Amino acid sequence: MLDRARHVRIAEIEIDPAQRERFELAIRQVIETSVGGEPGVLALYAVSDKANPARVTVFEIYAGAEGYRAHLETPHFKAYKAATEGIVRSLKLSEVQPIVLGAKSGSGEQA
Amino acid sequence: MLDRARHVRIAEIEIDPAQRERFELAIRQVIETSVGGEPGVLALYAVSDKANPARVTVFEIYAGAEGYRAHLETPHFKAYKAATEGIVRSLKLSEVQPIVLGAKSGSGEQA
Repeated sequence: MLDRARHVRIAEIEIDPAQRERFELAIRQVIETSVGGEPGVLALYAVSDKANPARVTVFEIYAGAEGYRAHLETPHFKAYKAATEGIVRSLKLSEVQPIVLGAKSGSGEQA
Repeated sequence: MLDRARHVRIAEIEIDPAQRERFELAIRQVIETSVGGEPGVLALYAVSDKANPARVTVFEIYAGAEGYRAHLETPHFKAYKAATEGIVRSLKLSEVQPIVLGAKSGSGEQA
C-alpha cells in the first residue's frame, strides 16, 4: 500500500444553516467535478453532523501534495469558493498523516 | 449513487503518546481484517494529526447501519478494544449524514 505517500486533509466547516441547500449543491458539484476530472484527487467525502447539520466535515485524499496544490488552482474549486463565501462561517483545515487507509479492493485511493 | 444510504461515522481518539506505536499496530490490524473480511465494512481511514500525533481520527464508511452493528460484534474488533484499552484516553463518536461520497471509479464505497 502507498498509504503513507497519500496527502490527506480534514476540513471542518461551519455553515449558515439557512443556506444549507445551496451549500450542499455547491459542494456536491465541486466534488463530482474534482474526483471525476483531476488525476490527483482520489476521494472527497463530505458529511454533515446528524446532531448539528450546519457542521460539515470533508475528508480529503489526494495522490500527493502536488495533487492538492493543483486542485486549489482549478476553475471549479475557485467557483465553489466564490459560491460559498457568504455561506461558510468558519473553516478549519488540518493536515493529517495516514496510519492506514483501508477500503474495499479496487478502490481508487488504495493502489 | 447510494451515498445517502451509507452509514458513516467519525471517531476522534486521543491516545497516550508514549504508546503510539502499539496503538498504530493494533488499529492497522483491525482495519485490514475488517475491510478485508466484512462485507458491510466499505472503508476505514485512520489518520493522525500532523501537529499533534496523539490525536487520531477514523473516518468510517459502512454499507448500512447493520454493517456497523455487525462490526462491533466481531472478535477482531473486540480484540482491538481490549488491546487499546490502556492507550485510548478519550473517544468521541459522531454519526454523520453523507452529503456526497466521491471516490475514483471502481471504489468499493461508491456503488
